[in-house]
This record gives sequence, structure tokens and C-alpha cells, in this order.
Amino acid sequence: MIIVLKHGVTAQDVEQFSASITEQYAVKVNAWYGEYSVVLGLLGDTSVVDLEAVAAQNIVASVKRVQEPYKKASRHFHPEDSLLNLGGGARIGGGALGVIAGPCSVESEEQIVDVARRVKAAGASFLRGGAFKPRTSPYAFQGLRAQGLELLRKARQTTGLPIVTEIMAANHLALFEDVDVIQVGARNMQNFELLKELGKMDKPILLKRGLANTIEELLMSAEYIMAAGNERVILCERGIRTFETMTRNTLDVSAIPLLKEQSHLPVVVDPSHASGMARLVEPLSMAAIAAGADGLIIEVHNDPPHALCDGPQSLTPPQFDALMEKIRRVAPVLGRTLSGAGEARE
Amino acid sequence: MIIVLKHGVTAQDVEQFSASITEQYAVKVNAWYGEYSVVLGLLGDTSVVDLEAVAAQNIVASVKRVQEPYKKASRHFHPEDSLLNLGGGARIGGGALGVIAGPCSVESEEQIVDVARRVKAAGASFLRGGAFKPRTSPYAFQGLRAQGLELLRKARQTTGLPIVTEIMAANHLALFEDVDVIQVGARNMQNFELLKELGKMDKPILLKRGLANTIEELLMSAEYIMAAGNERVILCERGIRTFETMTRNTLDVSAIPLLKEQSHLPVVVDPSHASGMARLVEPLSMAAIAAGADGLIIEVHNDPPHALCDGPQSLTPPQFDALMEKIRRVAPVLGRTLSGAGEARE
Amino acid sequence: MIIVLKHGVTAQDVEQFSASITEQYAVKVNAWYGEYSVVLGLLGDTSVVDLEAVAAQNIVASVKRVQEPYKKASRHFHPEDSLLNLGGGARIGGGALGVIAGPCSVESEEQIVDVARRVKAAGASFLRGGAFKPRTSPYAFQGLRAQGLELLRKARQTTGLPIVTEIMAANHLALFEDVDVIQVGARNMQNFELLKELGKMDKPILLKRGLANTIEELLMSAEYIMAAGNERVILCERGIRTFETMTRNTLDVSAIPLLKEQSHLPVVVDPSHASGMARLVEPLSMAAIAAGADGLIIEVHNDPPHALCDGPQSLTPPQFDALMEKIRRVAPVLGRTLSGAGEARE
Amino acid sequence: MIIVLKHGVTAQDVEQFSASITEQYAVKVNAWYGEYSVVLGLLGDTSVVDLEAVAAQNIVASVKRVQEPYKKASRHFHPEDSLLNLGGGARIGGGALGVIAGPCSVESEEQIVDVARRVKAAGASFLRGGAFKPRTSPYAFQGLRAQGLELLRKARQTTGLPIVTEIMAANHLALFEDVDVIQVGARNMQNFELLKELGKMDKPILLKRGLANTIEELLMSAEYIMAAGNERVILCERGIRTFETMTRNTLDVSAIPLLKEQSHLPVVVDPSHASGMARLVEPLSMAAIAAGADGLIIEVHNDPPHALCDGPQSLTPPQFDALMEKIRRVAPVLGRTLSGAGEARE
Repeated sequence: MIIVLKHGVTAQDVEQFSASITEQYAVKVNAWYGEYSVVLGLLGDTSVVDLEAVAAQNIVASVKRVQEPYKKASRHFHPEDSLLNLGGGARIGGGALGVIAGPCSVESEEQIVDVARRVKAAGASFLRGGAFKPRTSPYAFQGLRAQGLELLRKARQTTGLPIVTEIMAANHLALFEDVDVIQVGARNMQNFELLKELGKMDKPILLKRGLANTIEELLMSAEYIMAAGNERVILCERGIRTFETMTRNTLDVSAIPLLKEQSHLPVVVDPSHASGMARLVEPLSMAAIAAGADGLIIEVHNDPPHALCDGPQSLTPPQFDALMEKIRRVAPVLGRTLSGAGEARE
Repeated sequence: MIIVLKHGVTAQDVEQFSASITEQYAVKVNAWYGEYSVVLGLLGDTSVVDLEAVAAQNIVASVKRVQEPYKKASRHFHPEDSLLNLGGGARIGGGALGVIAGPCSVESEEQIVDVARRVKAAGASFLRGGAFKPRTSPYAFQGLRAQGLELLRKARQTTGLPIVTEIMAANHLALFEDVDVIQVGARNMQNFELLKELGKMDKPILLKRGLANTIEELLMSAEYIMAAGNERVILCERGIRTFETMTRNTLDVSAIPLLKEQSHLPVVVDPSHASGMARLVEPLSMAAIAAGADGLIIEVHNDPPHALCDGPQSLTPPQFDALMEKIRRVAPVLGRTLSGAGEARE
Repeated sequence: MIIVLKHGVTAQDVEQFSASITEQYAVKVNAWYGEYSVVLGLLGDTSVVDLEAVAAQNIVASVKRVQEPYKKASRHFHPEDSLLNLGGGARIGGGALGVIAGPCSVESEEQIVDVARRVKAAGASFLRGGAFKPRTSPYAFQGLRAQGLELLRKARQTTGLPIVTEIMAANHLALFEDVDVIQVGARNMQNFELLKELGKMDKPILLKRGLANTIEELLMSAEYIMAAGNERVILCERGIRTFETMTRNTLDVSAIPLLKEQSHLPVVVDPSHASGMARLVEPLSMAAIAAGADGLIIEVHNDPPHALCDGPQSLTPPQFDALMEKIRRVAPVLGRTLSGAGEARE
Repeated sequence: MIIVLKHGVTAQDVEQFSASITEQYAVKVNAWYGEYSVVLGLLGDTSVVDLEAVAAQNIVASVKRVQEPYKKASRHFHPEDSLLNLGGGARIGGGALGVIAGPCSVESEEQIVDVARRVKAAGASFLRGGAFKPRTSPYAFQGLRAQGLELLRKARQTTGLPIVTEIMAANHLALFEDVDVIQVGARNMQNFELLKELGKMDKPILLKRGLANTIEELLMSAEYIMAAGNERVILCERGIRTFETMTRNTLDVSAIPLLKEQSHLPVVVDPSHASGMARLVEPLSMAAIAAGADGLIIEVHNDPPHALCDGPQSLTPPQFDALMEKIRRVAPVLGRTLSGAGEARE
């Protein structure tokens, strides 16, 4: 960490300030006196230094990190790829391209079991489906909630696909004990109290990037979960908000190689939410794989026009078949093999 | 609500679709056959119509709302201004300009009581102070939590100022029973489960706009609280994220007159978080009042260089005195009078 | 075009307004009287209707286009793909993937001829190189200007590669007579006077999307050139500005399939400017091809550390060889064949 | 300027690199060896150092400016406020609040002369009016061009108001010889070739901030004009593009105090373009003055519903009277006096 001090600080100021930093954070401080300003360099583990608190000091002009502010999520301290392996071939990372597919929301037993069967047949490794639904309007369908989780379990029983579903509040955690992968939605990426609770669980967490959050902030949110003890985090790029109005969000495809470079955690991409348009799902899926994504999370509905949410971005089962067919053809050329389907757990 | 159908729909499609809409939402549907497309107009209360669900239908090209999607928050159905009145002169709205001031976080009894006394003396009507602190890094100071709330109560006992403090999770609600105004931070603006719980409380809620949320989304989040039964919501503009890097966020000053036009709810502005720089607090406060804000929420710390968070954006008590002095001079010319200080409640 | 009128307009207002629209734009107007408002539908060629002028009318509440505002650039009126074919195998579009490569700026004869030879050997079809350089700072290197164009001609003479280079002002046009493809930079995408002049030329124009421009605005700028008579436009996605700070810009990969859907014009992608980082050029190039791009424009420099501009995003010739190798392997699986190298013209 | 070098550089690398920097830019280089990295500090006039070129070097990890990259525009080297004084009381800056008013575009002699008389009567000091109009669509009204400039001269002759009008291309400069203040529109803020030409003129330039440009970039564009010899630049904040859709753009009110702090140049605000809505012009004008703006530029049209462009954001003359009345009442409380009206020059 490099700290530029304000014009006109005295040598005594510098010494006092350096001493206080050393004392508080157990780092060494080197001072370098320039013509225009004095610059301090902090040596040691600066990930624990509170940048804002330092920047707040009267004598500080600006602060610049040299080392990243996350540690457990950083590839620097963990050079090998982490991967998610739920057994039965359901893997994400380490060369295995895992596909998570299913409807935006669980609507009925027939619906979720039917979709689960079809996505499994097409080659998906995980089943997604929303039981608790974050909706902008209080008057929109909010999900089947506890009942939805029950129906997901039935679909898993039938197909063997591990289930991935979203949690919206820490006080629902008891209901999620039997879920295979817990998803944190974009709107909750900085719900820090929820992240801390998930950090105490022994379960993989799929963490979606917030609509206006930076790559560094996504990694800091992963760090919250990991610092609390749970290192099984999967990062998800799902589009950011920009001024473009033709798509719902803008897929930040650069985030894929950057996250892979900065972190050892697996990276999956959600082309359905990123675009909000079913006809963009195929090109964006291809782009994601080509850019190095470890997996995809895709909305598939047996009857998109009657879906209770996000119909316009859902693929039909035949469209999903075609997509998987194309992935199977392209993935090997890009050095990836499609992850196997999960096996019945119950 | 106006629904544009896709090219080539048949008259039978139109009739079936219209019938299904009528049945589901109890609205009347008028069809208008154009050369290029068929357009449907929905008559009646369309705020309950799920726009996404409609847009998802196979035959729909696009949907446009004519009526806003919020109802309880809308000025259309509630033409008079709502206001917050906690007694003892502590008011926001209806011509009264209420100032909420205090430190970013509660750090000690001496600190919070001292700051409370000074901001009261300067003319603030409410005391703010964070007990639970949302921080980007898990390694940064997370607030004194329950103990912080206890210290806020002591500061209220001494000064009589009603207290405003942030909640971060629904399962902390029991601790907030004695708080006067509960704040929802920007990162939780779309924590819908929390909003629903706050909708069951009999307590004013100060709802901050998310960093990348639109004005309509802010009003929809207010609607969540109101639809659940609690109509005492105060809206807060606190800066949005843009590509500008010189300030922490960009104060959206236009949001003030727009929110006042669209809604009857009081609007306060947070110039401290919007800029992240103490020296911008005065010009932005002036701009907010000039644009029609009902109140301000301002960070004041007795010792900014040693603040545990957000020091660079905190005013010192003398700086706050000068700001209040200027507000007292300017507000009347703009048709506003400064709200009185709260009176001891305990 | 659908026009929603304000509450309370009289039948007479509607008739007068409809008549004025019909007269001004030669379109037919249908009125539909709803409970909440009156809606007008415009039939005929509405691309010539000035949306802003209509929206400005006193009785208009809002306006919504059903038909796109561009015509010559629209796929609706021109279903087959346009393509760029400069002879000698140098093609972009129609299944041919064209690669444009070269240094950010032309620096010397040795440099540009050397880079041209190497990118040709690697399989590029076009040579790029900046003679006129838009730089944020007036104190930064502004390009060799006329002399740079001269050196590009020499590189073309040696290698046969057609040259692509940027114009910054209409009064430089005389110097560009011998250039093969004229590039309009992102900062000039809405330099409408320049676009009009380029519309009078008989030469392909590579039009880059502005840093904060929408897809529709890019197509409207293409329309400027085409409406003035020159229909040989190539669209270029080169990253948009967002709040992400880790990359220089954010590549909007969704723009590729959307532009291909909305327009018949070829679409190329600039991964070098989109990211600003050489190590992201390969993954972003792959993503662009996978998403359907017709071509790439890539910065290659024989000595990046000593480049006079944009060194950090330039590939070395060996890195470019490796990229082309990978493209040659992947493109066929994605249904594309690499365009041939251009042949000597002079 | 502080340069952080990459891990593992040798002492010899550092010496060679330092020597090359010293040689190229005439600055002194100090090296500081840390545990994690080597840091260089550049002493002397670093505004001429090409940050990108430095960042491009192989051994450089990152670069941070301590000194701003602009010089002539910087308050650091020019502590006193610059002001625009065209005689006859028409002033902007130095405590004088100058109001520029007039229609979006000049449409006819009657229109422009009528509007000029009315805005003068209301207290405006300058007349604005577009002769050359940048329009997104090639099919929209492009302005009366040379004839429009002629009509502006007539309006000046009648009222004595100095005229402010936009230039769109350097090859139109001959037509602008008789204009009082030349405006550069947002879309041309980084049309560097145009800026260089304007730098050779002896005429004030009103430079508008681009829709997606930072404050620093605006100052760099001012620097282009100033570096070429013309130091009479007026900066204009006119709203930036964000994801908010309710307004046309988002007025960045924080830019006002920041520009005043960083630069000595006068700052005016355009609330008409920032919002795109006539009913927001008054609150945003008040906010701008309260935040410290030196002037306003406001669209006034005698017949907004029939305006050829931007009608929805234009005030009628009576609305403008009311606004000026309010400004006259509020400005003195904020320490500003309204600039006088210009006097006939011809």
C-alpha cells in the first residue's frame, strides 16, 4: 500500500503517523521524501489495513493499494483452480464445463419435474429453479417459497440432478439445509449479514455479481463468505447495468478472464439474465465459454409464454437441446469437456 | 398499459389473449388494429398487472405503462404531502426542513453523546449514528452493533434528539424496537424480505436509493413497505454510481423534484455519502435545498481524522455550525423553515 | 409509432393534431379512445417522423416507436448480409472472418513495414495504423499525420495489405484519397458534419461505437453516412464506459448479435481498446467470434514497451501468431473461415 | 507521478528505466526499494509526461499522478478566478451570475428577434440559438446553418445581446467570425482537431462536457484550447448519461464545486439539456446557483409545442420571467449578483 501525504507535512507528522500505522496493523512503514510530497510504503500483509480509515487521516492526500484487498479469494495465495464437485459427474471448474439449467421459478410439481428431466436429458449437470423470488414489484409473483423447495427436492429425487436455488434472507436458512448449492442473487451481493451466515455453512454458495458492482467488490463479497469459514464459493457474472436499453443488462465478458486471473474460484455466467432475451442466450453462452467460463446457468421453461416470471429470456427444451448440442461441439476445441449429469442422491 | 402485439397475429389470438388478461387482472382490454401491428389498451387498475409476465407472452412485441406501477407511494392517489413528525418540533416535510446529523458510526459513549450535543446546539432535529455498518471488506470495522444501539439511546436521553440508525437484517429487528427512525441502506434497497418485515412495523423508515437503482425502483421499494402496512416512509437520495471517479458517487439532484412530483413521501438528501468529501457537503446541501429537498442527513464527527469510518466525508462540529448558519440564512428565501430540535422522550 | 396523449384532451384537439401529423409526414393516423387516455397510431413510413418534435407537442404525454428510426442500415429493408470485399481475398462478412491488425500509431517506416509483414505472415487481411491520433492530452504524441499516411502507403506497397486508418476532421479528407478503409473513431461517432462528408465518398467506412453510445445511436450514425450516399459501412464495437475500473472499457459482447439482427452491415470487434490490456485480447477475440463477429481489429506492435501509444494493449508479433493460430482452429467449428490476405494493389 | 514497478525487476532495470525517463521528460527520478515492489517518484513538471507511454513499459505495474495532467486550466498555477466580460454588463464569473437564454434552434427572424427581446427584458445577458444543430437522426431538422447565423446577428442588432452559438466543424469557422461566444457541444468535446483550431481564435469558447466524460477529461479538453493560445474558455456542465431513464441525462451538480476548485475557469450549467424537461429547469437552476455556478444557459422558446427541436425542455417567456424573478431574489443571499444585459455592439 502506498500512501501519498499532503503538501507541507512535517517530519514529525510523518513519524507519528507511521508509528500509528505500524502499531495498528503490524506492517512496516517506509517513508520516501519527494520534492512535491512525502510517500509512505507499507510492507507486510496490507489486506487487513482499512483503506478508508487511512484515507480519512488529516495528513493523507491519497492511498493506492499495490496488493489486492482480498486474500482467501486471491489466486496470489492459492495458485491452483478451485472446483466444485458434487459427485456423480456434477462438476464445475478444472476443465469441466458445468451447466445449470431450469426455470426462473418453480411453479408446480409437473413443471419442475418435467423441466428437470428434459435438461438432464440434454446434458445439464445441475437443476436451477427459484422458490424465493426477488421481484421489483410487491404485486408480482413472489415464488412458492417453502413449497417450491419441496418441489425441487422431488425433481432431484426423480432426476438425480443437484439443485441450485436462491436464498433471500438469513432467517430462511433452516429451509435450505437440503439444498445442494445456495445462490445469492445480484441484489443481495452486498447483504453482508447474509454473507456472514452463509460463511458458517458447509455448502457451496453461488454468488452473483450485483448490477452495479465492480469485479473487486464481487471478490470482497466472496471474501466475506470465505473469511467466515466457507471456502466453496462459485462466482457468477450475470450482466451489469449500463445506459444501453436494448438489453436488460450488459454481459461483462471481460470479467471472466479477469476473475480467473485474480481468483482461484470457479466462474459461471448467466446469459439469460444478462440479456433478458432468449434469442441472445446462444451467442452469449458461446462467448462465455470462449472467454474461459467454467460453467453456465441458463433459464429453461417448458412453456415460456406462460412462465410466471422471466418468460422472454427462457429457452424451450428444444432450444436448450440445440444449445447443448452446439456446446458439445465447440467446448472441446476450446479445451473444455462438458461436466457429467449428477446422479440421484436420495 | 399499452401492449403492442407481434406482426402477423390472428384475430383469434388477439381475442384469446385479451380474454386471459381480463380474467387474470380484472381490467378491460381494447384492441386497435393497425397496419403494422395490433395494439391493446388495458383499462382499470393496471398497477397490479405483472408487466414482465405480460411481456413474456409469445404474441407480445412490447409493453408500455401509461400509469405508474406503484400506488400507495404515488402522488396520483395521495395528492397532499406526507410528512414525518416525531413531536417536539422534529419534523421533515410540509415546509419544515429537517436535519439529521451525527457520526458515520457510533464509537463510544463520549463520542456519540458529545456529537449529539453539538449537532443539537447547531440546530439538527435528529441524531444519526451507525451501530451496524455495511462495509465492503470483512476485515473493516463492522460497528458496535447492539452496544452501539445502547449508546445511541444514551445520547437520546441526554439530548432528546430522536435517533435514526441503520438495520442490516430482519433478524435484528428486536434490537430496533426503541429506535425512532429505522434506516435502510443503499445496498439493502432491494432486500425485499427485509422491506416486507419493515412494512409490519409501526415506525418511520428512511429508505436510501441504491447505488444503481432508478427513481422508479426506489418508489417500488417504498411500495413494498407501504403495501405491507407501514406508510411512514422517507425517501433518501444519496448519490448513484457513474463513471466519474473524482467523487465517490454522483448526487442525482434531479431525483429531488422528480420524487416530489411522483410521490407524496418526504425526500431527504445525503450529501456526505453522495460525494465522499467533506468540502463538497456545503455546496451539495445548498443545491439539495434549492432543488426542493425536505431534509438533509449529514455526517458529523468530533474527530474526523480518527473516525473508524468515512472520516474524509465527515464535517467537524464547527464546520457543521457554519453549514447550519448558512442554511438558516438561505432556507427562508427558498420557502422553507428549519425544523425544530427534538425534545427528550425518555 | 404510438403516441399517448395527455389526460383531458378534447376530440377536437385530437383531430387537429392528427391532421397536422398527416400533413407533415405523409403518414396515416388512427385514434383510439381509452378510459385513461387517447392513443394515436401512425401508419406508413415513420422513420422520417421527428420523434422529439412530436414529443414536444403540448398534448402529447409520450411517444413510442414500433418501427426502428433507421432505414438504410436496417435489416428489415435489406435482409441479406452486406459484406466488405476489397479483392485479393481481403473480405469481412458473409462467413469470412477478416482480421485487421497493426500498431496503434505509425512511428517510422521500419516499424510499420516490419509490423505489416509480420501480421500478413500471421494471416491478417488488413493493416491498421494511426496517422492522426486522438489523445486526451494536448501534450501527448498526436501522430505523424500526413507523413504517417505516406508510411502506410509504403507498407501497403510492400505487403499488399489494404490499409485502415482514422480520420479526425473533414478538412483532412484530401489526404485520405488513397486509403482503403477510413476509420471514424469512437469520439467522432457523433461528429455529424464529418459523417455527412464521408457519406459522399466512394470508400468503405469503419465506424466505431462511441464510449457511451447506445446500439441505436451507432446505427443512426451509420444511417448518416448511408443517407448521404455511401452504403459501405462497417460497424465496430470497441467497449463502452462503465463504472468498472479494472478494464479501460467494457466490451459489450451482446452488441454483436443485436447489431447483426437489426442491421445487414458487417460487425467487427476491437478487443484491444475494449480492454486496454494485452492479456485480455485473446479471450475477448474468442468471445467476439463465438458471439458472431465478422471481424477483429487488433493492435500489434513490434516493441510494445517502446510504443508511442497504447503499448499495454498491443500484442507482440509472436503473441499475434499464437492468436491467429487459435482463431484458425476455432473459427471453422463456429462456421466461419478466415478471410485471405489482401494482394498488392500498387 | 508515482510509478510502481513489477515484482522482480533488477537494480539495473530500475537505473536504465530511470535514466530514460529523466532524459525524455526533464524530470528527476527517485527510486524507493520496498519489500513487495520498487516505487519511483518523478519530480519536476510531470504534466508533460505521457502517462500511457510510461504505463506501457514492460517493467511498470501501475502509475499514479500526484499532480494534475492539465496546467493552463489548473487553479494551482492560476489561483484567481478567470471571468468572461463582453462589456455592457454582460459578464460571467467573479461574482456575476450570467444568464444565457434563447431557443434550441433559430427558426425565423420573427422567432429569434422576439425571443431575444423577451429574454433581454427578463434579465438575460446573452442570447443563445442554434444555427448548426447536431441531431441523432439524419432525417431530423439540421438547423438553418449560415442563414441562422445571419438571423442571430439581426437579433443582436435589435437587442444588443451578445450571441452564443454552436460550431460543429472547423471548416465552418469563417462563418463564426462575428459570433461573440462559440459553443462546442457535448458530442464534440473530444473533437481534438476542432479544439486546436478554436485555440487559435481570439474569442471566448463555451465548452460543454461530453455525455460520458469525466471532469478531468473536460479540463483536458479546455487545456487543448488553452495550449493552442486561447485562454478564454467557459466550462459547461450539461448532464451526463446514466442508467436513469426518467430524465434525458443526469445533472452532475458536484461537478460545479469540483471544477471551481480544480480550475480558475468560469462554470455555467445547462439545466435544459441536463433534464430534458421544462418543469425541472427551475429546481435545477436553483441547485446550480446554490452549488456555486457562475452562470446558466437556458432554452426559451416563444412557442415550445411548435419548436423544431427540444420543445419539451424549453421554457415559455412567462416561465422564464418567473425563473429570473426567483433568481433575482435568491442569488444575493448566495453571494451572487445577476450580470447585466449586454449592450448593442453594432
